[in-house]
Amino acid sequence: MGFKVLILGSGSALPTNHRNPTAQYIFCNNRHILIDCGEGTQIQLRKNKVRLQKIDTILISHLHGDHYFGLVGLISTMHLLGRDRDLTIYGPDPLEKIVRMQLEIEGYPLGFKINFVSINGDSAKEIYRDNAIIIRTFPLNHRIPTNGFVIEETPKKLKINKFLFELDKVPIPAAQLFKMSQNYVSNSGQEYSYERYTQAPDKSFKYAYCSDTKYDESIIEHIAGASLLYHEATFANDMKDRARQTYHSTAEQAATIAKKAKVSKLLLGHLSARYGAVYTHLDEAKAVFENTYVVNDGDEIVLY
Amino acid sequence: MGFKVLILGSGSALPTNHRNPTAQYIFCNNRHILIDCGEGTQIQLRKNKVRLQKIDTILISHLHGDHYFGLVGLISTMHLLGRDRDLTIYGPDPLEKIVRMQLEIEGYPLGFKINFVSINGDSAKEIYRDNAIIIRTFPLNHRIPTNGFVIEETPKKLKINKFLFELDKVPIPAAQLFKMSQNYVSNSGQEYSYERYTQAPDKSFKYAYCSDTKYDESIIEHIAGASLLYHEATFANDMKDRARQTYHSTAEQAATIAKKAKVSKLLLGHLSARYGAVYTHLDEAKAVFENTYVVNDGDEIVLY
Repeated sequence: MGFKVLILGSGSALPTNHRNPTAQYIFCNNRHILIDCGEGTQIQLRKNKVRLQKIDTILISHLHGDHYFGLVGLISTMHLLGRDRDLTIYGPDPLEKIVRMQLEIEGYPLGFKINFVSINGDSAKEIYRDNAIIIRTFPLNHRIPTNGFVIEETPKKLKINKFLFELDKVPIPAAQLFKMSQNYVSNSGQEYSYERYTQAPDKSFKYAYCSDTKYDESIIEHIAGASLLYHEATFANDMKDRARQTYHSTAEQAATIAKKAKVSKLLLGHLSARYGAVYTHLDEAKAVFENTYVVNDGDEIVLY
Repeated sequence: MGFKVLILGSGSALPTNHRNPTAQYIFCNNRHILIDCGEGTQIQLRKNKVRLQKIDTILISHLHGDHYFGLVGLISTMHLLGRDRDLTIYGPDPLEKIVRMQLEIEGYPLGFKINFVSINGDSAKEIYRDNAIIIRTFPLNHRIPTNGFVIEETPKKLKINKFLFELDKVPIPAAQLFKMSQNYVSNSGQEYSYERYTQAPDKSFKYAYCSDTKYDESIIEHIAGASLLYHEATFANDMKDRARQTYHSTAEQAATIAKKAKVSKLLLGHLSARYGAVYTHLDEAKAVFENTYVVNDGDEIVLY
């Protein structure tokens, strides 16, 4: 179990010597997820010692190159390393055609199956759920169709209050029912109320990813209450007009979204290559939302 | 003027922490040429301080991903940095479709023109010539159509023997004719023979690039006498069978080609990720052709 976010690339369209194009590796309750896959992501995974064959879900936000040009290389490497497990890729429609065309030219059949699931930044919906995690997508507001993502833990079960459970000598089989908010009736007909023997479950964490997007309050409902929000901050306030024109955000705008969505912590990334230092972004964001960090490549944010 | 080869990627299909996929930057008489463009080439150009806007010719050997997956990212970056000068790309047919499809999805018109020239590893021919360099292609023997390349200087002009030229008081305008092997007749009717007043031109250098290919003596005629030969050596002799099956070469085979082609110096690259050290490759090649080097990323080989 556990929930952590590893930043593989924190730059924007122009990679620099310090910031690779966008990619993030998410570990959530033993699920291994990649969000976006800019050029060089497979190298970044290797440098950060992530075993790339563990990844079985890839989420692509949109088809600007700095968010997906590394995908076909990653897939080729997975093949060459002998992968046979399925891979599921969520992303805009043309992605499947682009990837399959390049793989076909390679001249050999791929050793594993890729399931492409089309999501086109046009509506909010749940795209994946199992007994440990839920993945949702929602539209961002960018120049081309763009998907935001929320990865959250499924609600956790109630915890047994061992002291009272043992004090009252409750039969052991009752515990599993209590955890699911159900009462227990013993063979002798005695009813035990789950409310007496349980306490609140551990918190379920929620990670929200918003890159690339202009300032748009319509995303707030989808990310509300997130434990951690990654929001693009391509520009600082000196380039506010350019942010609007290019459908990007400033650090202050990202912080405003974080504040209104009542998230716990804000990560800023996707910084334009024109900014050498990050102090301006940080100062302008913190004036609105204190719990803000500017990420660097290789940063690992551990939720628990 | 000058002629040098900068190794940007010396690995094979699987990139490692030390070897990027294939790419080379060639500087020849003020022409700036990129051969192959594996994933991450734009980062390697940046790290090696090559100004990528200077590149106006790109040669793609074949469409295995480790030789071209970085191309569309490089083109995008050239655009974002404001390029307006034409770019010419030589490579197999489907390349144009792959690149243009991805650029169109970006959602903006490219700021410069790309001339795609189709070469499909099917015949030897001259593909470019100006007053300083000549580029030729010839077929390699790989699993899919693959182009080898020769970049050579155009033959240099004869050099004036200043001592005799001044001794005989030859009229100044004669010099330009002498350099082009032409005699000069003065206004008074006196003829001056260029042979008396000139000496042999400086050597013209020739670089030959052979990756990827199995051992094939038919390439020898195209690379004969090269000053410098880069030949793939994916495997050492321990994997000779695998080299044959996968249409690759061993270091010894590369050295045999170098010897038979009477080249001056051999560079080995495209080493499989399974080899940690390069000693075996080097020993096996040197036993056949002494002037052999195994290249690393970042190596610059200066011809003059």
